Amino acid sequence: MSKRPLILVTNDDGITAPGIRALISVMNTIGDVVVVAPDSPQSGMGHAITVNATLYIENVEIDGKQQEYSCSGTPADCVKLAVREILDRKPDICVSGINHGSNSSINVIYSGTMSAALEAGIEGIPAIGFSLLDYNWNANFEHCKPFVETITKQVLEHGLPDGVVLNVNLPNLNGEDIKGIKVCRQARANWVEEFDKRTNPMGRDYYWLAGKFVNMDNGEDTDEWALANGYVSVVPVQFDLTAHHTIQKLNTWKLN
Amino acid sequence: MSKRPLILVTNDDGITAPGIRALISVMNTIGDVVVVAPDSPQSGMGHAITVNATLYIENVEIDGKQQEYSCSGTPADCVKLAVREILDRKPDICVSGINHGSNSSINVIYSGTMSAALEAGIEGIPAIGFSLLDYNWNANFEHCKPFVETITKQVLEHGLPDGVVLNVNLPNLNGEDIKGIKVCRQARANWVEEFDKRTNPMGRDYYWLAGKFVNMDNGEDTDEWALANGYVSVVPVQFDLTAHHTIQKLNTWKLN
Repeated sequence: MSKRPLILVTNDDGITAPGIRALISVMNTIGDVVVVAPDSPQSGMGHAITVNATLYIENVEIDGKQQEYSCSGTPADCVKLAVREILDRKPDICVSGINHGSNSSINVIYSGTMSAALEAGIEGIPAIGFSLLDYNWNANFEHCKPFVETITKQVLEHGLPDGVVLNVNLPNLNGEDIKGIKVCRQARANWVEEFDKRTNPMGRDYYWLAGKFVNMDNGEDTDEWALANGYVSVVPVQFDLTAHHTIQKLNTWKLN
Repeated sequence: MSKRPLILVTNDDGITAPGIRALISVMNTIGDVVVVAPDSPQSGMGHAITVNATLYIENVEIDGKQQEYSCSGTPADCVKLAVREILDRKPDICVSGINHGSNSSINVIYSGTMSAALEAGIEGIPAIGFSLLDYNWNANFEHCKPFVETITKQVLEHGLPDGVVLNVNLPNLNGEDIKGIKVCRQARANWVEEFDKRTNPMGRDYYWLAGKFVNMDNGEDTDEWALANGYVSVVPVQFDLTAHHTIQKLNTWKLN
């Protein structure tokens, strides 16, 4: 495109997280950046939206020249507010992240980072969620930058099919150890929870959600395989959740 | 099956909502019921989980003989806690709802009701989310009951394909005006937000999320068509979000 693209940047770790600052620095080299991101961490918020509470937006200055707004809502709220209330025109692309931690495989379902990308996709905006497999607040995002740049530029060049956004995960390796970028499918995996049960000072039991990730999918075409083997994984993700292949079978049931 | 099935019941409107009480009354005629549901309304929570806060469970008695637990977490948390901490064995089925309001079409993405069903599906439990197209707290659920019973019994008889749960929506009509049950695909529709901007007593602007639902999909095989034409819609929903049909095209991009 001839003029600089308008880029909406958001995340779920909050507007001051190092991951979004790294993402903004890459996007500033590609286009005109507007940031609308949660004012506090929203990890695990899935596709939550704020339906019974008020939403606040604050114009803030954190670093650099880009316009930035912190928002009291969820990542999906941020995208809705950006499109309807903040931006003068539809952005050319929406990028979300870089998340502090994996959103590969089934994690896509729980991910605030990806829900922001999906929300943009629903609005007809090409969108990408980026995540680094390092949960530390002070994770090093430097090696992510060239991959983020390549994938973003390819999306700007080719667009994305209607109803599809990209879920990009980056392995926690030195840049030179990353073998490349692989287009994958979502691995069939889940979390096996092991709740940590404790008693509070008032004598009441409570729980912490904890657990381990179990991958039952040995396919070499999955995101889990790619990440375990040193690749950046790119999964095209859709928000038509229909299991089309099962409709014929369900029509054989005695429903009427 | 020879012995009575074990049925996990949950929702997102909270354990005292009339919709879940109607669902429980149907399930008591089919099997042994255990209720684990949020202690307060969780609408619009999407697939949120509680990762940085404590979770409480309370054994409560509301009506009837079924075991009931109220939980401080989200619908997805309820299912995780039920499976790992409350139930002695894996339930034969998980039903969620009956939601006060539609979860058809794109609403499935934002729905706490459906996230509970999806969470159960991820755990390998056949699961159904039920929703009535009436947002009133005092909605009449009586006419839903025979359809809820039929669909639940069919799922218990046939099981569900791996990775698939059902999203059932019921039109807000008198029972005799409902034409039957239709297996459908999710319509391509979205919400066009119209934020309601106000100023609080301290002079600060805030927003309410509001908007209208726009269906751009005229297909007669969609849930929106079925509901508009007096049918109960059943959409098989999957949590593999991969847009498999786009992988080949993405592989033509210059990613490496």
